[in-house]
Amino acid sequence: MRTSDGPRFLKGHGTQNDFVILPDPDGELKLTDSRVQALCDRQRGLGADGVLRVVRAGALEDAPESVPSDVWFMDYRNADGSIAEMCGNGVRVFAHYLVQSGLAAPGEIAVGTRAGVRPVVTHPDGRVTVEMGPATLFGESATKVGETGFDGVAVDVGNPHLACVTDADLDSLDLKVQPPFDETVFPNGVNVEFVRRTGPERVRMRVHERGVGETRSCGTGTVAATVAALRADGLTTGRRTVDVLGGTVEVEVTGSTSTLTGPAELVASGHLDAEWWAHA
Amino acid sequence: MRTSDGPRFLKGHGTQNDFVILPDPDGELKLTDSRVQALCDRQRGLGADGVLRVVRAGALEDAPESVPSDVWFMDYRNADGSIAEMCGNGVRVFAHYLVQSGLAAPGEIAVGTRAGVRPVVTHPDGRVTVEMGPATLFGESATKVGETGFDGVAVDVGNPHLACVTDADLDSLDLKVQPPFDETVFPNGVNVEFVRRTGPERVRMRVHERGVGETRSCGTGTVAATVAALRADGLTTGRRTVDVLGGTVEVEVTGSTSTLTGPAELVASGHLDAEWWAHA
Repeated sequence: MRTSDGPRFLKGHGTQNDFVILPDPDGELKLTDSRVQALCDRQRGLGADGVLRVVRAGALEDAPESVPSDVWFMDYRNADGSIAEMCGNGVRVFAHYLVQSGLAAPGEIAVGTRAGVRPVVTHPDGRVTVEMGPATLFGESATKVGETGFDGVAVDVGNPHLACVTDADLDSLDLKVQPPFDETVFPNGVNVEFVRRTGPERVRMRVHERGVGETRSCGTGTVAATVAALRADGLTTGRRTVDVLGGTVEVEVTGSTSTLTGPAELVASGHLDAEWWAHA
Repeated sequence: MRTSDGPRFLKGHGTQNDFVILPDPDGELKLTDSRVQALCDRQRGLGADGVLRVVRAGALEDAPESVPSDVWFMDYRNADGSIAEMCGNGVRVFAHYLVQSGLAAPGEIAVGTRAGVRPVVTHPDGRVTVEMGPATLFGESATKVGETGFDGVAVDVGNPHLACVTDADLDSLDLKVQPPFDETVFPNGVNVEFVRRTGPERVRMRVHERGVGETRSCGTGTVAATVAALRADGLTTGRRTVDVLGGTVEVEVTGSTSTLTGPAELVASGHLDAEWWAHA
């Protein structure tokens, strides 16, 4: 092969939220905004929702002090190059990669993020459980899709959600535009979930993500949907299976925190073309 | 790495028309529709407009008899798994790969396709020239975008085009929907190009592809645009540089045929995950 080898990469996804993984243990990659944008570009690059750089916390300049230096750090970048503190789907893919590559033993793994160390558990079937932190119900609100009104609850999962339990046909909802919301309840915008009970402990969900549009999966959204579904059944804690467009996850809400368990899949691995990388 | 290696792949693009390349010299890959769809899926796979399987013509069951058995054959699949005879952007990426991988010497290369052997020339700067066959002007017609009418010419480049030379601001055109067309002139639908002169031998083009929508590049469309631009200058043969959203190509139209010269870029190479491939 004359095609020269640049940095190593993998491509993976969690419930169809997809990522380019860049193994960079010693923090040697020069990961500019421009390179992140090129990597995530679906036509001229590899294509992904974001980049997960795999780096020892001690090799990263801006790792939080609370993260021990020998922990594997998920340096997450959005497709535009900006930094995100956490990503519930990304951290599953990250942990799955650590185990598949032999960098971590299966089971309990501490993953460093800009939001601190996240405890993660990998399972033999490839699924990964991530602690998502507390989910707090903070009121009632409502929205509309077309002419149809939906009542819902306001839930804080680190970010704001309006989760609407409904008997309506979810497939018929047109979620191309942001559903309207009460700005006094959600001054910073809101992610809106439509949730339908499909079994004793199972719901289906569609989600409109703030600033993005409808997505195939939203980790914090499935937690908010579970809080709303539990409340509709008169409960404040419990588990629900949540079917999203991109797959299926399990959510557990306790009095103090929440966990998200879902699949993570690696699609391919290899090397970026050195010349492409040099000009990216 | 515990991640087990499945088939080898590369990802590349020509003016942002992007492809997964599968080197398979002896025709051993079982390339089902389902696998093509999974490969081209931009969230759960690698993501591409199509798949280029690289196989010796002699190893392919359905190669046309006119293609010698030792020629490298471009087994092109659309993203839905269906077979396409030719792809002007794909064949550039295909030829670039043959040279980069050492499977063919730079310069003149015969590429096997379901439309027969295509002569291709690779250049030292990475660009590739492909013979596109005759481009035949067969009438005048018109279309509309919003309330604005556009006059154009009907051009056959193996597929039907309506190429409209205009002084209008191309950026302001809303090409989300198929521009209307005369079904008596174009009974099988039509690709519509809007073409603006930007220099003595240079034009800019936007294109709405039949059944697809606006695309960043359309090889046959740039040939149709050149035919229309030459005619607007009182010519029937000549060259034009054509700027499309995905890059820049050079088109030459002669009395008997046409050629398209444009870039081809390899982004990455590696192996598909064996487990992913087994379930794809």
